[in-house]
Amino acid sequence: MQPEQPPAKIFAGRSSRAFAEKICSFLGVSLGDSETIRFSEGTLFVKIKEPVRGEDVYVVQTIGRAPNDEFMELQFYIDALKRASANSVTAIMPYFAYAKGDKKDEPRVSIRARVCADNLEVAGVDRVITMDLHSPQIQGFFRKPVDHFYAMQTLCDEVKKLGLDNLVVVSPDAGFTKDARKYAKELSAGIAVGEKVRRDHNEQAEMMDMIGDVTDRNALIVDDFTISCGTLAATADFIKGRGAKRIVACVSHCVMGPEALARLTNSPIELLLITDTVENPEALEHPKIRMVSVAPMFSKAIHKIHNKESISEMFDGQP
Amino acid sequence: MQPEQPPAKIFAGRSSRAFAEKICSFLGVSLGDSETIRFSEGTLFVKIKEPVRGEDVYVVQTIGRAPNDEFMELQFYIDALKRASANSVTAIMPYFAYAKGDKKDEPRVSIRARVCADNLEVAGVDRVITMDLHSPQIQGFFRKPVDHFYAMQTLCDEVKKLGLDNLVVVSPDAGFTKDARKYAKELSAGIAVGEKVRRDHNEQAEMMDMIGDVTDRNALIVDDFTISCGTLAATADFIKGRGAKRIVACVSHCVMGPEALARLTNSPIELLLITDTVENPEALEHPKIRMVSVAPMFSKAIHKIHNKESISEMFDGQP
Amino acid sequence: MQPEQPPAKIFAGRSSRAFAEKICSFLGVSLGDSETIRFSEGTLFVKIKEPVRGEDVYVVQTIGRAPNDEFMELQFYIDALKRASANSVTAIMPYFAYAKGDKKDEPRVSIRARVCADNLEVAGVDRVITMDLHSPQIQGFFRKPVDHFYAMQTLCDEVKKLGLDNLVVVSPDAGFTKDARKYAKELSAGIAVGEKVRRDHNEQAEMMDMIGDVTDRNALIVDDFTISCGTLAATADFIKGRGAKRIVACVSHCVMGPEALARLTNSPIELLLITDTVENPEALEHPKIRMVSVAPMFSKAIHKIHNKESISEMFDGQP
Amino acid sequence: MQPEQPPAKIFAGRSSRAFAEKICSFLGVSLGDSETIRFSEGTLFVKIKEPVRGEDVYVVQTIGRAPNDEFMELQFYIDALKRASANSVTAIMPYFAYAKGDKKDEPRVSIRARVCADNLEVAGVDRVITMDLHSPQIQGFFRKPVDHFYAMQTLCDEVKKLGLDNLVVVSPDAGFTKDARKYAKELSAGIAVGEKVRRDHNEQAEMMDMIGDVTDRNALIVDDFTISCGTLAATADFIKGRGAKRIVACVSHCVMGPEALARLTNSPIELLLITDTVENPEALEHPKIRMVSVAPMFSKAIHKIHNKESISEMFDGQP
Amino acid sequence: MQPEQPPAKIFAGRSSRAFAEKICSFLGVSLGDSETIRFSEGTLFVKIKEPVRGEDVYVVQTIGRAPNDEFMELQFYIDALKRASANSVTAIMPYFAYAKGDKKDEPRVSIRARVCADNLEVAGVDRVITMDLHSPQIQGFFRKPVDHFYAMQTLCDEVKKLGLDNLVVVSPDAGFTKDARKYAKELSAGIAVGEKVRRDHNEQAEMMDMIGDVTDRNALIVDDFTISCGTLAATADFIKGRGAKRIVACVSHCVMGPEALARLTNSPIELLLITDTVENPEALEHPKIRMVSVAPMFSKAIHKIHNKESISEMFDGQP
Amino acid sequence: MQPEQPPAKIFAGRSSRAFAEKICSFLGVSLGDSETIRFSEGTLFVKIKEPVRGEDVYVVQTIGRAPNDEFMELQFYIDALKRASANSVTAIMPYFAYAKGDKKDEPRVSIRARVCADNLEVAGVDRVITMDLHSPQIQGFFRKPVDHFYAMQTLCDEVKKLGLDNLVVVSPDAGFTKDARKYAKELSAGIAVGEKVRRDHNEQAEMMDMIGDVTDRNALIVDDFTISCGTLAATADFIKGRGAKRIVACVSHCVMGPEALARLTNSPIELLLITDTVENPEALEHPKIRMVSVAPMFSKAIHKIHNKESISEMFDGQP
Repeated sequence: MQPEQPPAKIFAGRSSRAFAEKICSFLGVSLGDSETIRFSEGTLFVKIKEPVRGEDVYVVQTIGRAPNDEFMELQFYIDALKRASANSVTAIMPYFAYAKGDKKDEPRVSIRARVCADNLEVAGVDRVITMDLHSPQIQGFFRKPVDHFYAMQTLCDEVKKLGLDNLVVVSPDAGFTKDARKYAKELSAGIAVGEKVRRDHNEQAEMMDMIGDVTDRNALIVDDFTISCGTLAATADFIKGRGAKRIVACVSHCVMGPEALARLTNSPIELLLITDTVENPEALEHPKIRMVSVAPMFSKAIHKIHNKESISEMFDGQP
Repeated sequence: MQPEQPPAKIFAGRSSRAFAEKICSFLGVSLGDSETIRFSEGTLFVKIKEPVRGEDVYVVQTIGRAPNDEFMELQFYIDALKRASANSVTAIMPYFAYAKGDKKDEPRVSIRARVCADNLEVAGVDRVITMDLHSPQIQGFFRKPVDHFYAMQTLCDEVKKLGLDNLVVVSPDAGFTKDARKYAKELSAGIAVGEKVRRDHNEQAEMMDMIGDVTDRNALIVDDFTISCGTLAATADFIKGRGAKRIVACVSHCVMGPEALARLTNSPIELLLITDTVENPEALEHPKIRMVSVAPMFSKAIHKIHNKESISEMFDGQP
Repeated sequence: MQPEQPPAKIFAGRSSRAFAEKICSFLGVSLGDSETIRFSEGTLFVKIKEPVRGEDVYVVQTIGRAPNDEFMELQFYIDALKRASANSVTAIMPYFAYAKGDKKDEPRVSIRARVCADNLEVAGVDRVITMDLHSPQIQGFFRKPVDHFYAMQTLCDEVKKLGLDNLVVVSPDAGFTKDARKYAKELSAGIAVGEKVRRDHNEQAEMMDMIGDVTDRNALIVDDFTISCGTLAATADFIKGRGAKRIVACVSHCVMGPEALARLTNSPIELLLITDTVENPEALEHPKIRMVSVAPMFSKAIHKIHNKESISEMFDGQP
Repeated sequence: MQPEQPPAKIFAGRSSRAFAEKICSFLGVSLGDSETIRFSEGTLFVKIKEPVRGEDVYVVQTIGRAPNDEFMELQFYIDALKRASANSVTAIMPYFAYAKGDKKDEPRVSIRARVCADNLEVAGVDRVITMDLHSPQIQGFFRKPVDHFYAMQTLCDEVKKLGLDNLVVVSPDAGFTKDARKYAKELSAGIAVGEKVRRDHNEQAEMMDMIGDVTDRNALIVDDFTISCGTLAATADFIKGRGAKRIVACVSHCVMGPEALARLTNSPIELLLITDTVENPEALEHPKIRMVSVAPMFSKAIHKIHNKESISEMFDGQP
Repeated sequence: MQPEQPPAKIFAGRSSRAFAEKICSFLGVSLGDSETIRFSEGTLFVKIKEPVRGEDVYVVQTIGRAPNDEFMELQFYIDALKRASANSVTAIMPYFAYAKGDKKDEPRVSIRARVCADNLEVAGVDRVITMDLHSPQIQGFFRKPVDHFYAMQTLCDEVKKLGLDNLVVVSPDAGFTKDARKYAKELSAGIAVGEKVRRDHNEQAEMMDMIGDVTDRNALIVDDFTISCGTLAATADFIKGRGAKRIVACVSHCVMGPEALARLTNSPIELLLITDTVENPEALEHPKIRMVSVAPMFSKAIHKIHNKESISEMFDGQP
Repeated sequence: MQPEQPPAKIFAGRSSRAFAEKICSFLGVSLGDSETIRFSEGTLFVKIKEPVRGEDVYVVQTIGRAPNDEFMELQFYIDALKRASANSVTAIMPYFAYAKGDKKDEPRVSIRARVCADNLEVAGVDRVITMDLHSPQIQGFFRKPVDHFYAMQTLCDEVKKLGLDNLVVVSPDAGFTKDARKYAKELSAGIAVGEKVRRDHNEQAEMMDMIGDVTDRNALIVDDFTISCGTLAATADFIKGRGAKRIVACVSHCVMGPEALARLTNSPIELLLITDTVENPEALEHPKIRMVSVAPMFSKAIHKIHNKESISEMFDGQP
């Protein structure tokens, strides 16, 4: 019903150039010309190198492996585009690391995801597209529309190829139980929920107990992201001890560095499925890691959003 | 270190007059003089009947049994107080019904809790005090400070008096698992998690499955609120079928009407513990219901907040 | 000069489904598919059931007979539509009950119309269309454009059919004098102004005195709205006592309940003209009441606004 | 109950130096040291010449005889004080000329009073004190508290001294009827309401008709302000023609220039009572004009507000 | 790539009617019909006399010779247009007098340019077009896009026609050095920088010293604006004393009144080049003044902006 | 006149712990207990470890050597403190690296300092204290008060000890001329201004030309900050070539890394004076660098601000 739009104008910050190139390739457009300079003391300078006046513009920038640099850079992109008279600016954050800071569960801490949401809005963002936020409530930290996608379908399609029978989906802790149920439903599997303990803000988790049965079953450990591989490994060790058979894991966002990759090597996890929301070449080379791309999903979403088509059908069959 | 403050000035909207009187009694102050008139077509008119210029004022108004009336009334209180030059206005919502609307889990719905948060802030609220929000992320819907309390300690103290051995704490669904763990830890109990299904937005829940063991154990079903008693009753029926012994339930907020009370009567739940955040005289007369007051906790919090003392110690021993 | 727009997308909340259907019928479009669920404790849940991405959307919701429910529902519509990426959302409130709360004429009260205006704006409304606000200044409570219409022309056309000669237009109190003059001018009639007294916020008015001559003249009592019929009846009694002949009344918004309708029955008013801004089936069945629809006027306005045409000509011949 | 405050810090812009000196004299404080420079092309430069850090500061600036200069100067005062770390800034506008622009009564005009309200709030004002706004709704244009006073009591006290028996209070037009009633009640007088016509935005009014009886009665014409004396003179001529006896007038704000003063000279008005909200030395010398000061009222209000005392008693006996 | 827009809708306030007519003439459109009424006490009333619903509208209003009146008028234009449902409003301020107030270089003064920027934004402006702001940082006082143009190229083209060899560009003070360098580069000239002293906020400058060589050279004194001609004359006297040959000056904005023009007459400046950003008929008649119009530049900019074309090429060849 | 305040509560982020300790030592208070955790992927987590309810709190965090990490951390401090009910939060940024991004001097770039100002304000900052901003206009990027200090007096006191006669102050480029004049006046020295060219955004500057005389004079090169030492070294080389005698430099903020320090070693600069706004241990060990602390100045300022005393006397004797 809407007139056909001119092609989407897509730019990428330094953390998502490759991912944005994939999207552009799907959409048949060229990545917009822009440049980020990092001065020797660390300040960033963003320059858009082609006109955007009156355009609906998209900036792809994951907030992942150098999150503060990446977040400030994203803001400078938004401000530069708005001052250059873009009609609208959509921030595409395939991963948004500060989503973890979504509540005040101890005294005198910041709700960091709300700080970031306010920052983006005051910088001028008109819409956000993201995937697998740490909690769905974070959409409510924004006043602007947030289009929120899920990797679950993409990851489950890959899991199904593994032919794991008698499968139990394992949530490493109570907080992810609700999502684990969705995996279990999609995979017609059972469910188990671990109890994890973490000393202060140390990244080393320890598994204490579990409800649900894993003995003599194939197990799929699921989580939204992994940084240290600590939770995944502790969970795998625990269910191994309880007699689980093959152990596979999948996470939406993989931010693992060298130490984490070593931990994966030494764990009973035989395969870790991840997506490409975070550019992580070292992880891609790890023999236990298999990446499935969510670029097609983002491309489809951008196409529909840009052409003012409904995206709700993209959620069909999703929980 | 701070100078002693003049006594707190506390007002109450129509939904929390009794609760506010309890608080005033604890604090040794008189409830502020105010009036709400409801005209025959339903509009509300609020009038503060004593000076508040320069005062730090507290308005107690639960958002529960007539939530839209109560919420609009609360806003008119805040606006009237700010225009009357109160130095600050703290909204005390012992229960905040719209906290349920905390995410956009299907297309084209409102995040109602954020709408309400923005409403209160634009009306001029300076701080919010509440208890057992449906999710902790809702604090992040506010830019103003939210002091968030929990009924768990108060309820567990009462549960302990029941002398239930071999206890399992039952979360009716995955979403409450994390909180159920806190009850289980406080009560040194095990845990079980149900899987509930709800047809559309119908209030009748059905229990499908459960992980964790309840057979031959005493069970404590826990939840943050109950309106229809549907979830509680379905869970109780299910665990009864699985061989649970005595079944007790506790919820922080009780908004049950006559139909819900009948459902409780007919369920295998022998005792339902509730608090007094919602004024509900019919519930109090139900033979299976026992109320434990959280007014002392709110009183202590207001006293400390009003005198600029830290409230973090009130969370000691809490998870 | 502007390109033809796609047809307007019109939704209706629960208080204006019938009125919105009339508008849609005039415009030759179907009413948008949406649903409002009311849970047993009173919270509302709004769901838009068709895509609106990129559309200019209109929501019709009068704020009248259950004003707090209706107002919250309207906000949830606006938020749901904006988060669903509507290009713009226009709130059509044929009647806006809280317009009465437009000033602070006693100490420590709220300016409720400003609270509501801020609420709508923070929820994301882009424009408001309404009729016969209690005072024209209320447009200034909004920063967003307000298109404000008047029922006077429509009502006067109906009055003229009555063939009342030697007519005097009666304003029940000083506050409506300016509007009464407009009716008098349109009807080539004289004017009289009553002095009403109201004990506190009681709805029972009493007529004390009057300036202007009503003896042996036909009288048209005019007001913007009636809830209790108290002011109209008191005025009619008073002018009857002063020797008025036939007594007719007209109001823009009719929010009368059963008690008010009984009062009308017993008053010397022979006919009360109203519009259909408030859905009020009981009133429509009252033998003294005649309704003239303003749906054609709203339809014309929406058509012009949607197609970016000037609406100023719609005010030609209006005072 | 509040601790005694340090003395109020009062500054004055160029339009209210004399009025502010009167207030300071009543309060026993010295006027704060500040300076406004006007450069030859017309820009203004404001400098506060004594510390204000942490102080509650008041700036007196009427918006009257050079309203745009005066309004911009007021904003620069507010901004300078806030950037100089004043704790709060209260703008005292004894007269606010742009209050006339309070509605959109013809297409495509500005609601100028709302523009000004937003300007003051974005400049940082914390409170406004003013008198006899053109309409009471203007309080609602502000989100910040507005303390609104009335000259009626002060003016009526002076009228009573005149010993006018058989008095009728005359409102020049329908819009002022409600206020005229208050004068009539205070003076135990009757009331009459004129019908004025004005060609476009020409300042020359013409009186067309009147309801209420003035023949053989002493008359008090009342209005909120006069600029050209046109309305007052036309009303006086009209009631003279209808047989009024002595004709006195009173207005809260007198902004008359030489031409207006000549019109007064030639009118049947024998005495015009005004206040000192606008500094107008030429008017004070006119033989028909008598000024009664509202500085004592403002002084009392500032004293109470500064000491966090209620001002509501100041409205006792007022309508 | 964008569809051709309907012609731009351009309105002008009272300070820029002639300049706006030039722009309209270049663009082949008629100036929009609007009217500003000034009442006898000085308040302004703006009325837009043709429909603007859905249009992208431009208002031309220089802030120069009666800056407070002009600035308030501009705000009323913006508010009237936004309330009349213009799609966007661009304020074109060829000169913005309050740009001088861009910093807090002494205690307790206002940053007047920020006050004005906030005023325009809260009134609803969507974009600003201006020329030669007193400092480039002022763009950052706005959150909305500012398109900022320079007269330098236009003025240099005129200077080149004068055939001044051995030229030195003279900056009257350190603050304009950076801009003077740009003139020098464009004109392949040397540079000299004066040291000016000003007693308080007195407009009479005195030249104290200078670095750079002017002896036996032709000199071009450059500055962004002149009000009193004091700085220009003092600089000219000083360099005359140091042996400069022909002395020419150029300023972007000329706000000189009669006294300033007399000062020019008596100075050793033989020619002063100005632009037409400020309507100044007296200046145009001065024998030493030559005006070069920047209306073509503004016209080109508006054309491009209105048609969503990049304007960056307009800065090619500019420093 | 104000009551004595309780001691200031001062916290420090990771970039200014040592500087904040100096301030606390001067003020005789202990540094507030807080902790920043950096997770392995780079996100930051801030925790305030002592109560701040009702307190006026100061957070010291320079934005210098890891500016994006430091800036995000500062925001989390502010948010955590405001949500913990601090009465006010003052951000002390001794150096603010993004002040460099203060204008839009090429198409489609961000005004980064405004982005940062908005970020801090939306996070809840109430006041900012900083030193030697890149341009004074940046104060206007904030709506909140900014207390802005200068190192010039402190640095000049040190320069005077060097006994350099026949001194010329050298500004490396036109942009710093105005500040260089202030140094020259304080030191009774002459002035020279260089012309620097920079290829794109490369940090290597090249000196092209200079006005003012340096031959056979001692020279003091002044600038606000140095990162690469490139500008300083190029200027020193140039004036050496023109016959300058001893060459000393001073900068307010020193952000030099190893490469920059090597450049200093090889330059004709014999001494570089810096302050301690940036923690830079490597720089402090360089034999040519001498640090003079501005902690006493900040301490004095905090003491006065905290006690609501005027700080304007601290600017006496400053230009």
